[in-house]
Amino acid sequence: MNAYLLDRRFEDGTVRLRNPHIAEMGPDILYHIGLGSSSHDLQDMFSDVRFVCMGGTPRRMEQFAYYIKDEIGYKLPSGTTLLDISYQSYRYCMYKVGPVLCFSHGMGIPSVGILLHEVIKLMYHAKCRDPVFFRLGTCGGIGIDGGNLVVSESAVDGLLRPYLEQPVLGEIQRRPAILDPELASDLKNLRSDDDPFTVTLGKTMCTYDFYEGQGRVDGAFCEYTEADKLAFLQKIHAANVVNMEMESLGFAALCYHAGVRSAVVCVTVINRLQGDQMSTPKEELNKWQEYPQVLVARYIRKVMGLPAHAPPREHSFLLPNEVPDQKKFQS
Amino acid sequence: MNAYLLDRRFEDGTVRLRNPHIAEMGPDILYHIGLGSSSHDLQDMFSDVRFVCMGGTPRRMEQFAYYIKDEIGYKLPSGTTLLDISYQSYRYCMYKVGPVLCFSHGMGIPSVGILLHEVIKLMYHAKCRDPVFFRLGTCGGIGIDGGNLVVSESAVDGLLRPYLEQPVLGEIQRRPAILDPELASDLKNLRSDDDPFTVTLGKTMCTYDFYEGQGRVDGAFCEYTEADKLAFLQKIHAANVVNMEMESLGFAALCYHAGVRSAVVCVTVINRLQGDQMSTPKEELNKWQEYPQVLVARYIRKVMGLPAHAPPREHSFLLPNEVPDQKKFQS
Repeated sequence: MNAYLLDRRFEDGTVRLRNPHIAEMGPDILYHIGLGSSSHDLQDMFSDVRFVCMGGTPRRMEQFAYYIKDEIGYKLPSGTTLLDISYQSYRYCMYKVGPVLCFSHGMGIPSVGILLHEVIKLMYHAKCRDPVFFRLGTCGGIGIDGGNLVVSESAVDGLLRPYLEQPVLGEIQRRPAILDPELASDLKNLRSDDDPFTVTLGKTMCTYDFYEGQGRVDGAFCEYTEADKLAFLQKIHAANVVNMEMESLGFAALCYHAGVRSAVVCVTVINRLQGDQMSTPKEELNKWQEYPQVLVARYIRKVMGLPAHAPPREHSFLLPNEVPDQKKFQS
Repeated sequence: MNAYLLDRRFEDGTVRLRNPHIAEMGPDILYHIGLGSSSHDLQDMFSDVRFVCMGGTPRRMEQFAYYIKDEIGYKLPSGTTLLDISYQSYRYCMYKVGPVLCFSHGMGIPSVGILLHEVIKLMYHAKCRDPVFFRLGTCGGIGIDGGNLVVSESAVDGLLRPYLEQPVLGEIQRRPAILDPELASDLKNLRSDDDPFTVTLGKTMCTYDFYEGQGRVDGAFCEYTEADKLAFLQKIHAANVVNMEMESLGFAALCYHAGVRSAVVCVTVINRLQGDQMSTPKEELNKWQEYPQVLVARYIRKVMGLPAHAPPREHSFLLPNEVPDQKKFQS
């Protein structure tokens, strides 16, 4: 067994819950994903899941579901389409494509944290074996231009501390934010020479705020100068921080505590050493946001025994039911 | 001027940004709400806004937009319907109903924080006067049964501290999480004797996690006993904490810092002294989630010079385009 996992799983690879109360409880309601252990046959529905992929917005993850369907050659029965399994929760979206489960996690550690508690419980109830969790996101690069990938080797908070800290019953709890080094290295090695992006392995700083928390000068408030900001970004860059986002610390800490192998793959949408404002055209941004999906899809293909690099073909990241300019805002 | 506001606004009531960089900047892109100061005429679009209402899910806030439309008698031109102004962002929803702006803020302080930075900047660019911000949410009651309202008199973190703490440029920043006491009191007084809910004024504990952060024993992890949990809940109850949720601390701190009057109105969906699992039937929950909307609508009506209590009539919280059971999950 992978050294990273230690003894945090059952021997058959199923997820061990570090909570003695769940086994004693009656039905378990997974409130925010609209499922339950008595209302649904979770083992029947989900026991074949091996890959759990999460990203910020429902739309992006719906697109990923259709993309990974094509990538792994998963055929839907004629006359069917993918369904948002969590549509009744109105909080996260959830698509299942054979062994791949796709979720949106919203923005920030609390939002991804609620989801992870419930997805880890889902893995337990469904008796999934050796699931691997991925976060596919966007980030600000520190010394990396927009449109390139970062695979996190670890996550740190805004004070460069490598753990998630939060109050539990009035006392501070700390959980190490460790990611699987083998998985990170495997992902980095899946880059091809003809990819339009680089892949950097480095530390990710995870913040609780997008503006002041990431040292931007363009929020509603700012009490420091452009020079203060640059000095801070240079300092963390010297400490091997190569990007900033808002979920990796919680994602890494909860997956590690659950004994789940996990990786964070983000595309840079800006080089923060050069600015704060997100002014890249939408079409460019949309193209960039496909890059984490491309790398993760290669990993999934490889584990499934398919050639990691699919023969080149035209991908459409448009959804089947998408009509461009369906809504147009009249200002 | 309200004592709570001190000197944090311009004399004409427009929002003062505590950020000297914005005035010197070129166009300001409000990235996460899909607007910009040069791509949109923000003053033309939004200068009449006086009330900003936020809640967790896009669906609930869309419903609120249609509800407040009826409540204030706002007529849409024939052949038009409300539009999600931020639909291009895929992150938050945003509806405008005359002087009322409605947003979804997602889950947790980081998610509501990103939105607030951008909405406060929107108020500044649009030169809105004296806007009042409301959060309408759900919460766990501490000693209050499900289906009742709490108006927060202040927000505290998981260690009972009345401020928002976060790292900025590598140092801890603290912002007091103060809510407008007059506004809270006005809201409480708008309850009618025939309302199916009580209204309690008290402290709100705001946490970074729904499970361990709120002392639940039903998350993926739990390292304490039921007795430890109850002792903690009793302790905070003795400190006048009457409910727990996940956004009020950031909401209060950012609004107060911006000189914006703000209030948090939440409905309890469970009495945490009696349990953790969210097992109330969906229909009941949906009904309860209308209660904060009812109270806030009365306040808006009153300020607009309409009778606070509308004559009784049948409300439909269904959306115009909603077909019940449109999607049905086949397990």
